[in-house]
Amino acid sequence: MPRTTETASYKFNHTMIRIKDPKVSLAFYQDILGMDLLAESKFSSFTLYFLAFNHDGKELTQEEKDKSRFSREGVLELTHNHGTESDPDFQGYASGNSDPGRGFGHIAITVDDIEKACERFEKLGVQFKKRLTDGTMKNIAFILDPDGYWVEIVPGILKV
Amino acid sequence: MPRTTETASYKFNHTMIRIKDPKVSLAFYQDILGMDLLAESKFSSFTLYFLAFNHDGKELTQEEKDKSRFSREGVLELTHNHGTESDPDFQGYASGNSDPGRGFGHIAITVDDIEKACERFEKLGVQFKKRLTDGTMKNIAFILDPDGYWVEIVPGILKV
Repeated sequence: MPRTTETASYKFNHTMIRIKDPKVSLAFYQDILGMDLLAESKFSSFTLYFLAFNHDGKELTQEEKDKSRFSREGVLELTHNHGTESDPDFQGYASGNSDPGRGFGHIAITVDDIEKACERFEKLGVQFKKRLTDGTMKNIAFILDPDGYWVEIVPGILKV
Repeated sequence: MPRTTETASYKFNHTMIRIKDPKVSLAFYQDILGMDLLAESKFSSFTLYFLAFNHDGKELTQEEKDKSRFSREGVLELTHNHGTESDPDFQGYASGNSDPGRGFGHIAITVDDIEKACERFEKLGVQFKKRLTDGTMKNIAFILDPDGYWVEIVPGILKV
């Protein structure tokens, strides 16, 4: 039940992170993680990419994708400031997990079979921050996205 | 349709940010934004709080909340490293929106009536980063959470 009628319509729609190179990041989020590109909004100096998992058994039309962009949960917004991808002086973005810049931690993807998911990431050459076998928590893994953001891989039935 | 059968089960489960003081942050995310606390996991040096909007017309049992924590989308994980709330030397966390530490941008909450939502935030004394009337985009607002993270408020039907 919503906590108050005033917030009954509220949804946690999206999380935004900045990316250096959309070609590389879209390949990661689409081909490796399996997200769909819902929409792309190009402005003069930056472009926004909205991605989400499509759990339906059918392809969405572009109209349905556009509509869902601000009406569903679980959307990832990638912001590309034009030029960073080819700027030799660009220092990269902070992952949020070390000083200075500590704050944001990670995004997390739930998967049904984490062993199989991690095997597939290994095969695809994905960089790991923490393999299942590292550390004390043997049932979660962390992979790195192309900008170094941490992506937690977690089984849907994890007990913490 | 999922992009591949290998990623068919994948969900964008949660986003994690670090917080200084859970009392203050929980008041913000529960009372002002209307999220439910799904679970609290206390470890020796830190505690994790998992929050999400409950869109169902009924109260969830703790078992249902625990189960949904890693099986649904739209979950926010707040990490509290014990002691920051009372440490005079604690410098605070980076919002991700200025150097050094630029990377993460914001989380976004979809609301049905953005004018009404912003009026309510004003009444509740919420700090604004961008009011509806500021800047050129008159249909989105940004408020600040207690740690200074940007929270975008966006209508569910926004066209960008």
